[in-house]
Amino acid sequence: MTLDNRPLIVSAPYPRTLDLIFSPERKAQLFEQYRILEMESEDVNNLNDDIISEINYIIGQPPLDEQFIQKASKLRCIFNVESNLIDNMPYPLLFERGIHVVTTGQVFALPVAELGVALALALKRDLINADLMFRDGNELWGGDGNANASLLSGATVGIIGFGDLGKALNQLLKGFRAKVQSYDPWLPESLLREHEVAPADLDTLLSTSDVIFVVASVTSENQHFLNKSAFSKMKAGSAFILLSRANIVNFEDLMDAVESKHIIAASDVFPEEPLPLDHPVRKLDGFVRSAHRAGALNVAFLNMGEMVMEDLKLLDQNLPPQRCKRAERETVSRMRSKPVTTN
Amino acid sequence: MTLDNRPLIVSAPYPRTLDLIFSPERKAQLFEQYRILEMESEDVNNLNDDIISEINYIIGQPPLDEQFIQKASKLRCIFNVESNLIDNMPYPLLFERGIHVVTTGQVFALPVAELGVALALALKRDLINADLMFRDGNELWGGDGNANASLLSGATVGIIGFGDLGKALNQLLKGFRAKVQSYDPWLPESLLREHEVAPADLDTLLSTSDVIFVVASVTSENQHFLNKSAFSKMKAGSAFILLSRANIVNFEDLMDAVESKHIIAASDVFPEEPLPLDHPVRKLDGFVRSAHRAGALNVAFLNMGEMVMEDLKLLDQNLPPQRCKRAERETVSRMRSKPVTTN
Amino acid sequence: MTLDNRPLIVSAPYPRTLDLIFSPERKAQLFEQYRILEMESEDVNNLNDDIISEINYIIGQPPLDEQFIQKASKLRCIFNVESNLIDNMPYPLLFERGIHVVTTGQVFALPVAELGVALALALKRDLINADLMFRDGNELWGGDGNANASLLSGATVGIIGFGDLGKALNQLLKGFRAKVQSYDPWLPESLLREHEVAPADLDTLLSTSDVIFVVASVTSENQHFLNKSAFSKMKAGSAFILLSRANIVNFEDLMDAVESKHIIAASDVFPEEPLPLDHPVRKLDGFVRSAHRAGALNVAFLNMGEMVMEDLKLLDQNLPPQRCKRAERETVSRMRSKPVTTN
Amino acid sequence: MTLDNRPLIVSAPYPRTLDLIFSPERKAQLFEQYRILEMESEDVNNLNDDIISEINYIIGQPPLDEQFIQKASKLRCIFNVESNLIDNMPYPLLFERGIHVVTTGQVFALPVAELGVALALALKRDLINADLMFRDGNELWGGDGNANASLLSGATVGIIGFGDLGKALNQLLKGFRAKVQSYDPWLPESLLREHEVAPADLDTLLSTSDVIFVVASVTSENQHFLNKSAFSKMKAGSAFILLSRANIVNFEDLMDAVESKHIIAASDVFPEEPLPLDHPVRKLDGFVRSAHRAGALNVAFLNMGEMVMEDLKLLDQNLPPQRCKRAERETVSRMRSKPVTTN
Repeated sequence: MTLDNRPLIVSAPYPRTLDLIFSPERKAQLFEQYRILEMESEDVNNLNDDIISEINYIIGQPPLDEQFIQKASKLRCIFNVESNLIDNMPYPLLFERGIHVVTTGQVFALPVAELGVALALALKRDLINADLMFRDGNELWGGDGNANASLLSGATVGIIGFGDLGKALNQLLKGFRAKVQSYDPWLPESLLREHEVAPADLDTLLSTSDVIFVVASVTSENQHFLNKSAFSKMKAGSAFILLSRANIVNFEDLMDAVESKHIIAASDVFPEEPLPLDHPVRKLDGFVRSAHRAGALNVAFLNMGEMVMEDLKLLDQNLPPQRCKRAERETVSRMRSKPVTTN
Repeated sequence: MTLDNRPLIVSAPYPRTLDLIFSPERKAQLFEQYRILEMESEDVNNLNDDIISEINYIIGQPPLDEQFIQKASKLRCIFNVESNLIDNMPYPLLFERGIHVVTTGQVFALPVAELGVALALALKRDLINADLMFRDGNELWGGDGNANASLLSGATVGIIGFGDLGKALNQLLKGFRAKVQSYDPWLPESLLREHEVAPADLDTLLSTSDVIFVVASVTSENQHFLNKSAFSKMKAGSAFILLSRANIVNFEDLMDAVESKHIIAASDVFPEEPLPLDHPVRKLDGFVRSAHRAGALNVAFLNMGEMVMEDLKLLDQNLPPQRCKRAERETVSRMRSKPVTTN
Repeated sequence: MTLDNRPLIVSAPYPRTLDLIFSPERKAQLFEQYRILEMESEDVNNLNDDIISEINYIIGQPPLDEQFIQKASKLRCIFNVESNLIDNMPYPLLFERGIHVVTTGQVFALPVAELGVALALALKRDLINADLMFRDGNELWGGDGNANASLLSGATVGIIGFGDLGKALNQLLKGFRAKVQSYDPWLPESLLREHEVAPADLDTLLSTSDVIFVVASVTSENQHFLNKSAFSKMKAGSAFILLSRANIVNFEDLMDAVESKHIIAASDVFPEEPLPLDHPVRKLDGFVRSAHRAGALNVAFLNMGEMVMEDLKLLDQNLPPQRCKRAERETVSRMRSKPVTTN
Repeated sequence: MTLDNRPLIVSAPYPRTLDLIFSPERKAQLFEQYRILEMESEDVNNLNDDIISEINYIIGQPPLDEQFIQKASKLRCIFNVESNLIDNMPYPLLFERGIHVVTTGQVFALPVAELGVALALALKRDLINADLMFRDGNELWGGDGNANASLLSGATVGIIGFGDLGKALNQLLKGFRAKVQSYDPWLPESLLREHEVAPADLDTLLSTSDVIFVVASVTSENQHFLNKSAFSKMKAGSAFILLSRANIVNFEDLMDAVESKHIIAASDVFPEEPLPLDHPVRKLDGFVRSAHRAGALNVAFLNMGEMVMEDLKLLDQNLPPQRCKRAERETVSRMRSKPVTTN
């Protein structure tokens, strides 16, 4: 290895695999341009010192201690391709040393946003029941089948959380000329306005939106913050679409709001996954269900590899990573999204 | 009536009604600004000559003969609010006299286009079966449920027919950054390019599109032109969405193409409406059904009244109508869409 | 000629020439697909009857009388490539017979709109004087040179007249996120809204716009309608850009409004063209001048030929022309734009 | 001061002033929500320890030493409102401590981009000479005045550097439907594609663009990199617009390329500012000059204050700043833009 001066990457991408996130061509390129040391996450911290001191990059989110980071004098960036940050490495020391920890969750933004629009349109046009009734021979024709139908075009849309997912949703809604408003206490309002989105406080958003998308991350501050009180503020007949994490809402309250016919709703995430067979949401009328399928498309996973390759190229030139998202000192400890165990 | 010099409108809007197409406010305005003679369609032609000679506008598509038109010296415009042109009035004479015949079908463009996008997304994400399986407790979680899932964003989309409906679809697709191509032999190619749509011949469109929307009107020339041969040219796994009229396709061939798993499909229109209970499309896997519900939203019908009011205002000033679509000498006799009998 | 059944075109395009409006390739195509009879405008009406009865299309705006039109039984379309309609043919008979008269002035919309934006930006940033002062060595650096500078981005823009030119301007302004409002009494308001333009009455437009573009055609009703009273309603320091025809404004009043420093202005059109050497607008400070150069780009003229070819193709299939703009019974007699004598 | 627990801001914004960058309303708000200590830049480092240990934020770019930073235990963010980073504070220590250093130069992006578009259109339509000739009575009318005129719409545009300024330019060009390509070695290509911009290597950009905008920052690596060789690769007759810093180009070579009529050009920045009276660029034909006026609009300076207020609000909640741009460990030492001395 002494004569090989290609940068050294430790690869421990569990629960991802290199084959999941790199196309064959990109993987070949990765192995050509870098020395790759593939291993289990739990073994990384126990590498011997000679190797640790040579590591330039880590792909994965292995548990690491302070000693490891102190010895990893060439380490420049940890690519967390799981993308939910867990508290298994010494972030303060990493930040102090200027070692980037970056995530690739942005790849899910577009697939999740598309499913969000699909669910909104399905709710507004009662698409699923209409097909079921047609199968069964009791479909309603023409206007008779549109009693509660309404358009997304021109509707008032509320987006709770304006990170990558909120931006992707806003992009997809462009053609619908919706009046988009967003609530995101972590962002300056002018940034929303740059995206032609109206900043809104939560109550205004709840009470004036025809469709609400929840795409906020779970943090130590916002767990269950959408509860009975919040749902009661929503417009009668409006649609609520939950796309980020179930813990943001009080799920019982959400089901009550739908059961009472106050709102209609759809969700890609659930309090337990998989969900017990007898969970009442399975039969809830006015509710559309998706089993955490919004983001997990092959095309999304392959984009992770693209992002990693692009930032490796910048880091190799001693430039900062620009493609993946960097963990931040101020917020890393506030994140509460549970990591996935399956892809 | 002699002292009332407000313009005279004969209202015979069957199968629509004034209350369907005008909001209460607009209807009040209509009755305030015009003399309105409400009647059955079949009675219009038998009005006495004094009245005929006073008529300025007709709302509806009543059967009219040449004598009527000759006598209707002040007639300026016939607002066909059913919007499918049938051959029940002397079009050559109307054109010669410069009496506009206009239709209001444009109001359906946006609702139909939205349902089209809803169906495309539902097909691409298997939305309906996913919800059914979830109800039944056999849902697939995460990537396991996305075996055939793909994105509309960035897909190659083919639009057959680029009239109002094609334009509305193209508008909704803006945010998806789809590569849109269209085949429309009645339009100059540069007009497509102005809409940032690539002109395509039919074979190219069929063989390169990931999603195909059919939004062409039925004419004497295109009945059943999408048949076995056409479907065989489509990309394996691509989606076919029929939104305009069933007569454009050979419906048997379409079902075969879906049954063989070559393509997936959805349709809002059917060879017979209502459809026999034993029609095989009811149980066809890989097919999503909508019972001619795409356009018939209240908001669409109310837009008809808005369009009529706007063009009346222009016609009152001796300006040409700009909002409704004018029947054309060259094409009026080629149209073959059957009028609706229910709204 | 008897065995040649290609459609017959009479070509009398003065003041254009075929070489001005067709690229060599397109011209070759024209001569290959059609029989072309090239002649002076004034000779068309005197063709012998055998030929007149064979003519399918005319390119140009030759003087024609009723007898000619009666004899021209195969005539389908007159392509007026000068594009200002003058009263030298029997329009009522043409309309009765269903012979299209179409104009190609749309080709100028984009070049004129671009010059309009150029003039607006030049006025807002004092671009011309800044360069002159720099040449002379008395330029002002940084903020010192921006005393009256302002941005087009986010400005309130008024467009008077929302035809092809107004639409082209609105398109160019998209990236500037201007608040666009338009006054056009010949159009339904909903059509403006479809273009994301706010309909406005004239007084509102005048009194609230930071920049006003005049792109309305001259008609029998709007000559000189922008006068002292109109200019006095404009916001202090706002910019007025005249692009269509000088006769729409009272030019003296416009100069007074600029001279008094109430507004700044630019114009591409003038009461007389060429303008007398001693005309005071030549030295008027706060005014930018362009000598009717806005539209006359080679690329625009060549587009005329493209438009003609596209509509010929449709007409050959007995379809209506869709690319060129059709003269209308109601408005043809109201137009007052003088034809050009030079290209 | 002991009982006042509002955050403490040291204000030393030279060469800006608080009144330049805050509107009266915002300034009042600033003084209400924060304790403000106003002082000269050179005095900050000498504050006594009690005060230093209380400072939460600094507005300005005062020279600071390591001792100061060590003592400033509550310091969270330095708002560099001059915005060109100079090497007068211990950046490594600041980064280690997690003290943000942020700049507000983004406010200039839109004004500079607008001037860029103005210059491009002025060059393409020869706007300045046309007005001068008109003043002098030797203007050319219609097509005669458009010998070299061309459109920005549909043109191939190259943007060198795709930071805030490049993004603002790309935004303004949206309506022109230009084919935009960009060269930026500090950015991943996919980020350009997200903005619908084609990534290009420098030679491709130079040799295929009709208009080139230079908006890259000066770094230790790119000084004078646009030289004789680069200009010779440009298309004959294409336009070169320099907006960021003169040091990026070899100015002599640029003038030669214009003098030889190979290209046309415009610049807002010059090798020396102010420029000697006898500098040959003052009289260079085919060149448009602007005296570093592109960004220095009042509206831009006032936006600085808005940005500061928005990020203060986030920082007060222990969130990271999102509005201003953060200095980066990797790039701070590479920047070479000289700070301004006048606003």
